[in-house]
Amino acid sequence: MITHPTLIIDKTKCRNNINRMVIKAKMNKLIFRPHFKTHQSIEVSKLYREYGINKITVSSLKMAEYFAADGWDDITLAFPVNVLETPTIDALTKKINLNLLFESIEAVEYVSSKINHYVGGFIKIDTGYNRTGIHYSKTQEIDKLLQFIKKSNLIHFKGFLVHPGHTYKAQNTDEIRSIIDEALDALKALKSKYGSMFQNIVATIGDTPSCSILESFEGADEIRPGNFVYYDLMQYQLGACKINEIASAIACPVVAKHIERNELIIYGGAVHFSKEALEHNDYGKIYGLAVEVKEKGWGNTIPNVFVNQISQEHGSISAPDEFIAQTNVGDILYFLPVHSCLTANLMKSNTIYVK
Amino acid sequence: MITHPTLIIDKTKCRNNINRMVIKAKMNKLIFRPHFKTHQSIEVSKLYREYGINKITVSSLKMAEYFAADGWDDITLAFPVNVLETPTIDALTKKINLNLLFESIEAVEYVSSKINHYVGGFIKIDTGYNRTGIHYSKTQEIDKLLQFIKKSNLIHFKGFLVHPGHTYKAQNTDEIRSIIDEALDALKALKSKYGSMFQNIVATIGDTPSCSILESFEGADEIRPGNFVYYDLMQYQLGACKINEIASAIACPVVAKHIERNELIIYGGAVHFSKEALEHNDYGKIYGLAVEVKEKGWGNTIPNVFVNQISQEHGSISAPDEFIAQTNVGDILYFLPVHSCLTANLMKSNTIYVK
Repeated sequence: MITHPTLIIDKTKCRNNINRMVIKAKMNKLIFRPHFKTHQSIEVSKLYREYGINKITVSSLKMAEYFAADGWDDITLAFPVNVLETPTIDALTKKINLNLLFESIEAVEYVSSKINHYVGGFIKIDTGYNRTGIHYSKTQEIDKLLQFIKKSNLIHFKGFLVHPGHTYKAQNTDEIRSIIDEALDALKALKSKYGSMFQNIVATIGDTPSCSILESFEGADEIRPGNFVYYDLMQYQLGACKINEIASAIACPVVAKHIERNELIIYGGAVHFSKEALEHNDYGKIYGLAVEVKEKGWGNTIPNVFVNQISQEHGSISAPDEFIAQTNVGDILYFLPVHSCLTANLMKSNTIYVK
Repeated sequence: MITHPTLIIDKTKCRNNINRMVIKAKMNKLIFRPHFKTHQSIEVSKLYREYGINKITVSSLKMAEYFAADGWDDITLAFPVNVLETPTIDALTKKINLNLLFESIEAVEYVSSKINHYVGGFIKIDTGYNRTGIHYSKTQEIDKLLQFIKKSNLIHFKGFLVHPGHTYKAQNTDEIRSIIDEALDALKALKSKYGSMFQNIVATIGDTPSCSILESFEGADEIRPGNFVYYDLMQYQLGACKINEIASAIACPVVAKHIERNELIIYGGAVHFSKEALEHNDYGKIYGLAVEVKEKGWGNTIPNVFVNQISQEHGSISAPDEFIAQTNVGDILYFLPVHSCLTANLMKSNTIYVK
């Protein structure tokens, strides 16, 4: 019985989401290296194993260690290498194949001077997100970095990695397509420029919006979406998923009713949902949308019932009269989260899996 | 040595913050029942013990259990009672004095029918925050609820509890004062109305902004601030603290430099800082402000160096040329957080204490 805020993961929906992405990768002859930062869960990693997945992406060394301990032995740490963690990196590369991301000569020199085992190295390429990486047009900078990687005996150059995260700010699917087209063209150009110097260069790409919307990925060899296994309201708003493909919901107890202002108060706040909000067309700023509670999992969204405010542990639910009237203190309501990665991170120790 | 995002707690600053609040409570003959939801830390709870504190406030039953296991035996759970957790509540009341919050007859009836040990009961009063509680003007509703509490053999009525959280939305300290004046007046009126019916009614109040700014609290018997032990940029902006009273900072490794756009990238994102942002007068939207790193703790803020964007694990730092030039990949930068409660909750397992 659920008695406090609990993240519910619908494994059937996860499997369907994984299955669609596996098929898409196969059709395009792409390596599928899902990002595990969204779920950070051994239970969900088992679903991936059912589909034969054996290469993964993570965003921290701690996550790499966590999944390595569970038998995952081919991991890309998709984050600019944190040189301060080099001893831990070196210890991990004794046991598994680990790929790191480089974008500066300093990091290449530092890591290669301190490690004792082989490590894979990708150059992080920026195709307009402007967060990290070397812009694809700066080939002189890329040349220079490659010279330093080549000099290292233990960093084995693997290829170019792009995370076109600006798809999250796109207004529509056409914008997403044009962002990805630029990224794929950049990867193609890099592969053709450096293909004679290095064999088997891997061009890797892939955020959830683009991997969900696009049908072909010419220019890429590998995709790395992560969020798609759960999806969320943000992805739904971007057009990356259907509402019934969202595979996570937060179950929260009702603790108070305020009929006079059409509000319910739930036990469920910023330490459960996260503070990520979404501008909803009809409701304004929301932190979650209510869905019908089913014996196992959930059904459709409930019109006009949504989380409109959160503090540390409380959530305020806006709802119509009839919904308030039929809801009691002690009932459990389910909500689709705005950003499942942040929610799942907060709810790690309060998650149950159904179906 | 710090190698990954780490929350640093300056115990000297914490002690000073506690000491000031202890003195203020003593001067006003108030019970001081600090809220432990901010720090959720045994280490910080020890600092409170140094000042003779033995009554505390928490916001979840899990926190109550956590601190009870460490010897705290007088705890107010300042959250509308979650009836689904009644069995755990009952188990806990065997061991400690626990106070619960009621605002509905259903909850009073449910809890009193299921418990086997005495529990303290406060009525949650709303004085304009409009989150939870019965509005103080609705004395008929309060009368009714009190009748049900009186009928219960095991719920011992303790008094009225207010959390005037709308102080967080105040534009200046005058607004905070007027919010608190209304709350204190409401408590006075309730105490005088119900004083003949119940002996030793406790009127309890207190969020950090008001407890920091006000000098006297006529009408209240108890204060329950929590955030003040760490403070943060939000409190600083409200005028509740000085910048050098902020007792927590996040240490983050630099992982990339982008000279062309005056940006550094740190390992430190939404899963470390939280997504709470602040509108800064000079810098726009920020997620943290840089401070000078000292051998133990930190010094002044560094002008024009701040977190301007975050994603799950990355933070983007806006900084002037000369700061970028002197900063290297692998350096550690310190940042004051926007909302220390959410940051401390995320960083629970990555916190160190200095001084």
